[in-house]
Amino acid sequence: MKKGFASDNNSGIHPAILKAIEDANIGHVVGYGDDQYTQKAIEKFKEKFGGETEVFFVFNGTGANVLGLSSVTQSFNSIICAETAHIQEDECGAPEKFTGCKLLPVNPVNGKLSPESIQHHLKGFDFEHHSQPKVISISQVTEMGTVYQPNEIVALADLAHKNNMFLHMDGARLANAAVALNMDFREFTKNCGVDILSFGGTKNGMMMGEAVLFFNPELIKYTKYIRKQSMQLYSKMRFAGAQFLAYFENDLWKQNAGHSNNMARLLKNELAKIPEIKITQPVEANGVFAIVPPEIIAPLKERFFFYMWNDGMSEVRWMTSFDTTEEEIYEFVNLIKKLLKS
Amino acid sequence: MKKGFASDNNSGIHPAILKAIEDANIGHVVGYGDDQYTQKAIEKFKEKFGGETEVFFVFNGTGANVLGLSSVTQSFNSIICAETAHIQEDECGAPEKFTGCKLLPVNPVNGKLSPESIQHHLKGFDFEHHSQPKVISISQVTEMGTVYQPNEIVALADLAHKNNMFLHMDGARLANAAVALNMDFREFTKNCGVDILSFGGTKNGMMMGEAVLFFNPELIKYTKYIRKQSMQLYSKMRFAGAQFLAYFENDLWKQNAGHSNNMARLLKNELAKIPEIKITQPVEANGVFAIVPPEIIAPLKERFFFYMWNDGMSEVRWMTSFDTTEEEIYEFVNLIKKLLKS
Amino acid sequence: MKKGFASDNNSGIHPAILKAIEDANIGHVVGYGDDQYTQKAIEKFKEKFGGETEVFFVFNGTGANVLGLSSVTQSFNSIICAETAHIQEDECGAPEKFTGCKLLPVNPVNGKLSPESIQHHLKGFDFEHHSQPKVISISQVTEMGTVYQPNEIVALADLAHKNNMFLHMDGARLANAAVALNMDFREFTKNCGVDILSFGGTKNGMMMGEAVLFFNPELIKYTKYIRKQSMQLYSKMRFAGAQFLAYFENDLWKQNAGHSNNMARLLKNELAKIPEIKITQPVEANGVFAIVPPEIIAPLKERFFFYMWNDGMSEVRWMTSFDTTEEEIYEFVNLIKKLLKS
Amino acid sequence: MKKGFASDNNSGIHPAILKAIEDANIGHVVGYGDDQYTQKAIEKFKEKFGGETEVFFVFNGTGANVLGLSSVTQSFNSIICAETAHIQEDECGAPEKFTGCKLLPVNPVNGKLSPESIQHHLKGFDFEHHSQPKVISISQVTEMGTVYQPNEIVALADLAHKNNMFLHMDGARLANAAVALNMDFREFTKNCGVDILSFGGTKNGMMMGEAVLFFNPELIKYTKYIRKQSMQLYSKMRFAGAQFLAYFENDLWKQNAGHSNNMARLLKNELAKIPEIKITQPVEANGVFAIVPPEIIAPLKERFFFYMWNDGMSEVRWMTSFDTTEEEIYEFVNLIKKLLKS
Repeated sequence: MKKGFASDNNSGIHPAILKAIEDANIGHVVGYGDDQYTQKAIEKFKEKFGGETEVFFVFNGTGANVLGLSSVTQSFNSIICAETAHIQEDECGAPEKFTGCKLLPVNPVNGKLSPESIQHHLKGFDFEHHSQPKVISISQVTEMGTVYQPNEIVALADLAHKNNMFLHMDGARLANAAVALNMDFREFTKNCGVDILSFGGTKNGMMMGEAVLFFNPELIKYTKYIRKQSMQLYSKMRFAGAQFLAYFENDLWKQNAGHSNNMARLLKNELAKIPEIKITQPVEANGVFAIVPPEIIAPLKERFFFYMWNDGMSEVRWMTSFDTTEEEIYEFVNLIKKLLKS
Repeated sequence: MKKGFASDNNSGIHPAILKAIEDANIGHVVGYGDDQYTQKAIEKFKEKFGGETEVFFVFNGTGANVLGLSSVTQSFNSIICAETAHIQEDECGAPEKFTGCKLLPVNPVNGKLSPESIQHHLKGFDFEHHSQPKVISISQVTEMGTVYQPNEIVALADLAHKNNMFLHMDGARLANAAVALNMDFREFTKNCGVDILSFGGTKNGMMMGEAVLFFNPELIKYTKYIRKQSMQLYSKMRFAGAQFLAYFENDLWKQNAGHSNNMARLLKNELAKIPEIKITQPVEANGVFAIVPPEIIAPLKERFFFYMWNDGMSEVRWMTSFDTTEEEIYEFVNLIKKLLKS
Repeated sequence: MKKGFASDNNSGIHPAILKAIEDANIGHVVGYGDDQYTQKAIEKFKEKFGGETEVFFVFNGTGANVLGLSSVTQSFNSIICAETAHIQEDECGAPEKFTGCKLLPVNPVNGKLSPESIQHHLKGFDFEHHSQPKVISISQVTEMGTVYQPNEIVALADLAHKNNMFLHMDGARLANAAVALNMDFREFTKNCGVDILSFGGTKNGMMMGEAVLFFNPELIKYTKYIRKQSMQLYSKMRFAGAQFLAYFENDLWKQNAGHSNNMARLLKNELAKIPEIKITQPVEANGVFAIVPPEIIAPLKERFFFYMWNDGMSEVRWMTSFDTTEEEIYEFVNLIKKLLKS
Repeated sequence: MKKGFASDNNSGIHPAILKAIEDANIGHVVGYGDDQYTQKAIEKFKEKFGGETEVFFVFNGTGANVLGLSSVTQSFNSIICAETAHIQEDECGAPEKFTGCKLLPVNPVNGKLSPESIQHHLKGFDFEHHSQPKVISISQVTEMGTVYQPNEIVALADLAHKNNMFLHMDGARLANAAVALNMDFREFTKNCGVDILSFGGTKNGMMMGEAVLFFNPELIKYTKYIRKQSMQLYSKMRFAGAQFLAYFENDLWKQNAGHSNNMARLLKNELAKIPEIKITQPVEANGVFAIVPPEIIAPLKERFFFYMWNDGMSEVRWMTSFDTTEEEIYEFVNLIKKLLKS
């Protein structure tokens, strides 16, 4: 299929990742993570995030979020998140089903939470009638394509910790955030007070595979059992480990995410020249949200597949990917211009 | 790592499967199953099992079992299975956690259930104090390496249906059973009355990927939501579809499973010549269970990795795989002989 | 303890209810509801609500809400409710834990939902990533002491049914609403399109006991199992039945609720004469919400116990009960006046 | 209804208990347990069981078991119990649904577990594929009417503690066991190593009400939230406390249970004289299990209601109660004799 702007997970596997899978396909290794690929990948994560980091590989982003949240909550807890959060909108209730917790959605600004916006949920502590707040969960990059600044993360982490709560970060697009911030992963996660991190790879060139990182070893007392019970334990786990090794090799993650972000910026810049198109969110990573004249949407979609974000507002979401090309951006923009004229 | 006899999932990816992944790695396709690889693979399953078969790809065997069982139960139901069943012993309680159901384990004969052995659990229907029996679950190949004959499956299916229950089959090693029975998949599953089938690929040469098959379309009313909520929806699903297409191409599944079964038979025949080794289960597929003099276990394991089955009885489980060679079997048997002499 | 205005459940048992318990305390009857007291009480409900009404007695209000919601949902569903709803704020996550569903809180006006305010949650139908909306849940009387008018209920019921959803009513204070509306129970529940009703008795003079009513017999296919599994099946159920019989006898419910509502109105009228007190919600049933000068709260509470509603705003909630007297209202108001002067 | 032998919960409320409810029905008290009746009852429990005992009142026996088990388990744990246990057979899967745990039923001898009979389940510790054993649960009196001797309890407690597990006792008929053993409650519970105790009252003359006792305060870190979330928090809790106070006053519990046990002994002794009746379990408390000629069952039931235990074996269960009279026993036995002759 021709490439489009539907989602960064419509792309395939980066060749270097695929090569790593092939290279790991030799002989027998013990299943479920007791192999050298997995162990080396875990070591690599510890290098990046600090030695006391605990790492668990899972199948997908929903699995990563649920495993992380389950490890630090009991069923009578609540989890504060943005109304736009993946855990609230796009996981078909997996967090509630598996953790038993209540999710407390907050109306975000550009997809982001702030201490002010969640303050009203920090109540009822020790009161048995009330779900006990335990986690603040944020997405980095947010589902609106924006990026939390380190100080914003620190403020939320401080608020969480002051209330004996944890800060969870859904990093399905963490690499895109790292590039946007021009920082190492650790600087804007662990160093800012994040406690649990869903570290995504699939949306940035991996075949499949996400990691859940815990920055306090006390949090993982039961995580291995929860991973198995949540159906996220991969038998041929070497192929997850191998992918992550390649992902870090030569900063492949940075190349991919950097390219993807560049393509979104290019798209945004080109769209800015078209008065009929209204960009609705700051373009800080690899997503562009825009209000588009309704009449051009169907013909545009026919050639470049993408999703509506808000039908009523004629708002679309365009995601770029590690394999998006400049030519495709220009072709896309030219088609928009052409359609607007006709 | 050198090959051993620990589990068929210690093997890697069959080259033809890997090739299929590479071939599918072109351009963009819609995520979550709306791609031609997935659709063609589903068509292939319908060819094999009948047009009204419904197919859902998931990540692993536990996910397959849980999705199948969740689709046909409510939390107040019970599920009858063998004490040795994977759902009872090896899934860390995922079925209970996710379905809410009670599992009723039965002491099996050679890993198998029979109508007689489960009869005492078929009670309490319509009685609100009692978990309502809803599923009989069997494994084909069983966890003891034995294979249900079609008439045995029919008897359990009839009993299930007579009681308004379903027959679920955990087919993590379904290909090995098909080869052992010299039958098409359909003959000993759907045609024998199986309602829900976990169709395994990972243990027979796939990288990862299992399918859940429902032979009655009414059963899948909610399955797509349950798959998502159970964290089993693969975003780049084309790579699951592509693997299954290769698995069926040229009957690769049959070659792999046939070879694996042959290697187990060879192993059994060679072991039969060693009086100190006592085979404890009929060898009908790709597993050999044996009581082995305790003193040779450690040195044997050093060279060929495997797992104890029953420490107290000095019983081991040796699994062969699609990539096990005759040379390895002979080398292994010779080492046993040598260790027994020393 | 001296009576206060903390909650209508701080009161005891109405003498006629207690008498009914005593009268039913003769000999043996079959447990779990197969007794004549329970059966007669169910008949009485059918008289009031129509013959096809299905009735299940449970222990408490949270149990009633959870049983009703569980009967009509699957774990991948969502339930829309007010941010102030008991199921959202005061049940420690029991609905999420037991149903697995996502609760979607909406900012209400005077505790009430409207079709406009919930419209944005009616989306994602048939989309597997999204929790499927299945129930709109309202409280009558609301947690803010207000009462839905019949046309408001009809509008929500119509919206629910148009979307293949159900309308659930938490009627912990249903009698107070009936008196406020001057209607029979049926007129503003079943006749307005309510599908599932938590019918409360405890807050209006019963010792304990709530009923869950379903107005469509198809909804209760599994309710009896869910009641048992949710730990809400009372063994000596005759004493629930006997209480409800007395509750309906001579319209005791109406006397109690009518008195309680009158006391709240009296309290409101007297408070209206005090300029320092600001009533914050329409007083339509038996609750008065007011902003009170902070300095009088502690001394006032010492003599008449009650709860703060909103600490930051110095807002209190004062509930009247079936046993509140006019003298207590005047004593309370006089104390307020006295404290304000000092 | 005329009294029968169906269950001790077919009886009503002992007059002294009912009197206590009436006496507590004065004025207002704070809900949910912050009242003097509840607090005094808790103090009474601490007197009986030791000061560090933690006490939580709940509605019924299933609620008590689930609250106790939930407080000390995580969803990936397993709970070992007898096949005949109430938690296995009679709670419609509430333990699995609410705790998420796997129940491991064991074939008991006279309803009892022994260290030998459960040994095979004490495996897989630290192995992530295996539900982690965490609780041994026994019933005292057992569901077969037998009573654990203190040394039998100690042996199970020691085994549990050696494996970092807990011993839970379902004491729905604890008073009958105390009388049978001629011991204080504490002697054969806490002093024998029981960690969590469901302390029943309903089957021995209370209207409703059970207590969950924890003998280690560290176990109740989250119990109050779990009670609320499991729908077991009683708003007018004073009436639970008042009942327990009366239950302990003048050793009412002992009178009731002693009488009930005596009646069962009388019944057994009289039945022993009838050669056509075969007593199948030791009669140690207030239950008599017997094989009865099938032809007399229907006419016998018509006059004295009771339940079949095992239809195939024509085995019945006859329970005596605090209000069973000698006359009723003789009338019953005489009817049996008469029916056998006709």
